[in-house]
Amino acid sequence: MGREHMILGAFFFNPQGDNRMSWRHPSAPGFEVFSFQYYRDIASLAEAACLDALFIADHVAIWDTYESNVAHYANARLEPITVLAALSAATRHLGLISTLSASYSEPYNVARMFASLDHLSGGRAAWNVVTSGMNEEAMNFGRDATVEHAHRYERAAEYLDVAKALWDSWEDEALKLDRESGQFADATKVHRIAHRGNHFNVRGPLNVPRPPQGHPVIVQAGSSNDGKNLAAAHADLHFSMCRSVEEGLAYRVDFNERLERYERAPQSLKILPGIQPVLAASAAEAQEKREILDSLIPERLGVDLVSSWCEMDLSGLPIDGPLPDLPDEGSYNGQRTNLARLKSFKAQNMTIRQVARQLSISGAAPVVAGTAVEIADFMEEWYRAGVCDGFNLMFPVMPEDLANFTYHVVPELQRRGLAQSSYSEGTLRDKLGLLRPANRLVLER
Amino acid sequence: MGREHMILGAFFFNPQGDNRMSWRHPSAPGFEVFSFQYYRDIASLAEAACLDALFIADHVAIWDTYESNVAHYANARLEPITVLAALSAATRHLGLISTLSASYSEPYNVARMFASLDHLSGGRAAWNVVTSGMNEEAMNFGRDATVEHAHRYERAAEYLDVAKALWDSWEDEALKLDRESGQFADATKVHRIAHRGNHFNVRGPLNVPRPPQGHPVIVQAGSSNDGKNLAAAHADLHFSMCRSVEEGLAYRVDFNERLERYERAPQSLKILPGIQPVLAASAAEAQEKREILDSLIPERLGVDLVSSWCEMDLSGLPIDGPLPDLPDEGSYNGQRTNLARLKSFKAQNMTIRQVARQLSISGAAPVVAGTAVEIADFMEEWYRAGVCDGFNLMFPVMPEDLANFTYHVVPELQRRGLAQSSYSEGTLRDKLGLLRPANRLVLER
Repeated sequence: MGREHMILGAFFFNPQGDNRMSWRHPSAPGFEVFSFQYYRDIASLAEAACLDALFIADHVAIWDTYESNVAHYANARLEPITVLAALSAATRHLGLISTLSASYSEPYNVARMFASLDHLSGGRAAWNVVTSGMNEEAMNFGRDATVEHAHRYERAAEYLDVAKALWDSWEDEALKLDRESGQFADATKVHRIAHRGNHFNVRGPLNVPRPPQGHPVIVQAGSSNDGKNLAAAHADLHFSMCRSVEEGLAYRVDFNERLERYERAPQSLKILPGIQPVLAASAAEAQEKREILDSLIPERLGVDLVSSWCEMDLSGLPIDGPLPDLPDEGSYNGQRTNLARLKSFKAQNMTIRQVARQLSISGAAPVVAGTAVEIADFMEEWYRAGVCDGFNLMFPVMPEDLANFTYHVVPELQRRGLAQSSYSEGTLRDKLGLLRPANRLVLER
Repeated sequence: MGREHMILGAFFFNPQGDNRMSWRHPSAPGFEVFSFQYYRDIASLAEAACLDALFIADHVAIWDTYESNVAHYANARLEPITVLAALSAATRHLGLISTLSASYSEPYNVARMFASLDHLSGGRAAWNVVTSGMNEEAMNFGRDATVEHAHRYERAAEYLDVAKALWDSWEDEALKLDRESGQFADATKVHRIAHRGNHFNVRGPLNVPRPPQGHPVIVQAGSSNDGKNLAAAHADLHFSMCRSVEEGLAYRVDFNERLERYERAPQSLKILPGIQPVLAASAAEAQEKREILDSLIPERLGVDLVSSWCEMDLSGLPIDGPLPDLPDEGSYNGQRTNLARLKSFKAQNMTIRQVARQLSISGAAPVVAGTAVEIADFMEEWYRAGVCDGFNLMFPVMPEDLANFTYHVVPELQRRGLAQSSYSEGTLRDKLGLLRPANRLVLER
């Protein structure tokens, strides 16, 4: 199945924007991030520009290992499934992507939530499957520290097997609703899944009919080896972090090999690298915008942020000195994408202060600052080179940078034929050029 | 705090109505029960009539122990939190009551969902806390059979302690959002809850600010001794089943005694008995309506329904013979409210066929059939006698019986000054005459 245009999704974790300190920016929203109207307005902006999806990331804890975290960091937020369910009533076309952790929840409950959201939204639900790597998260669910990395991913893969089987437990044709005969369902098309595995025993069937999309769109982000294998086995969309066309092309080749191991075609997995588009009239203005944000991180919070990423307390070290020796990946249970990033900073001999400033901009997504034409040029180059199927748009300050992007960059992309000017009909899968999954319980019959 | 009018909530478990076979009724909805529009229309009806709340019940399984169940019973439905979150965007005043089981979920996740729904809806979220008693439910969560009754309630009570502490973990004044100083939150007002109990270890704090209502309204239904004690300790609303003014008055007295043990005033717990209002021009028409529904239950499904309630397979017994000896309450792990009802049928020497027909109308809620004046008379009598603070309205066929009630009975109640003709301002707690809970983590300081 083809897709003529870039896939464009608007992402946020902090609703104030994707810089650690976005909330302090003069244009950032205040208390309204705890009200529905804020999200409705963001969704309206996105839908008016025909963006494909709104993507809300999530953690199941606040970040509070260091004292500065609670005082300065925007830890409080709404829960994404409820936000997106509310938005399903206020939007018609926008894909609704919610992060939900497979580490501290039950597949029966989560499969129901996404199936229900898919019905309510007419087939627009998508699930970004993550594992929870923070110790703060583990401690909210009866543990003293996070679960070992490989174990989390093994559980997530089994979790997805269970969820997919539950979505398939009512065949598409199972519901009859034949008033005359009294047949509500064809019992031969409603299946117990009888899953017995290392992590879950789930009998099924689900109590929600098969979702309009068959399965909600499965999203995976995070580029550890385990994470990429999970995506190759299960995901429809992958959010990547890459810095250059060369890196992106190599990444795609690597993924195609992984997909082949699961007998999947390259086009069955769409890759969307994160970028941070910042509209500015000139390089000087872009630099100034960036410096305003960089200046907002309190020094102590910056150091504590680096400490969190290393899983080592750096507060005793000189802030203008080098990073200490970092843990090996094999013994590191946090987010390995983060550790890899720190190692590259260390290789560049960056000081703790410099690293803190780098980390104040979330993730490794490249900042693409410039005029609408320059931003569109960048996106066109990556897209035409075959680096990606579209972009995961991470805006430093919400909703301002999103609004600027939709008002100025999207029309430029549309003029070039790179972005859609209207929505096509159908479910999110249809719109993204993804196949509706066959029912595996039927195939196995 | 007072409340001048009856509290009126529209309830459903099956979205087709509160008879086991509602879905077969000629006026019942079809496949649209899996779309948002169906619920939006129901909510619009309820809000146009100034009803206080929409209440969606739930199970975490389909009912499929007997083969007939899958074929004939309306087992498929949407998940209530997602439905109510979507409805929060389409309503302004209606309370949003969702059942959610404390048996097979994590308090951190559930506290977040309800806190988030409370923010999104401007303080209209309510949680009907249930324990899951069906074996079919247990088997979806890694167990072979349901958890012992007392154990379920002990877990539910601890679950509520944890959820309430999490809602209190951000004090009302904790959020500062002071851009100038960089203080996002006053760290002295954000608390780890450090809960260590028999069922849960949860560190907290929650990552959602304190809900607008302090705590979402807590609802409890089910009248076992354990259930009533849970309500006395924790609930704001209790859904009861009673058959007469005398029974209702005794029930209230009993509850007041239980509340006193927790140092709670009687008016802090609102009691809403279930009734099934069926508008009919005459007794004959009402009887005819009832008979249509009664005639819709397939014989085999009726027997299997009684078998489920007894937890004994009755298919070998003569359908026109008596019920067998029933289990003792102490050894019965299912819903004890159900067992008690069967025992009263047995005491009346009813046959299995007669019991099956009784059970086809869900629950023990009295059918109140008649003209608008007669239904209003019944409700006025119970309300003025002090039996209740309002009613949990269970309609045999949705949305028809709800629409008839709002068009004809509500205006009659309004004329008598018994039902509100407009919404008052404020949160659901404010509207219901319930106090906003003090923050227990502050009180303990």
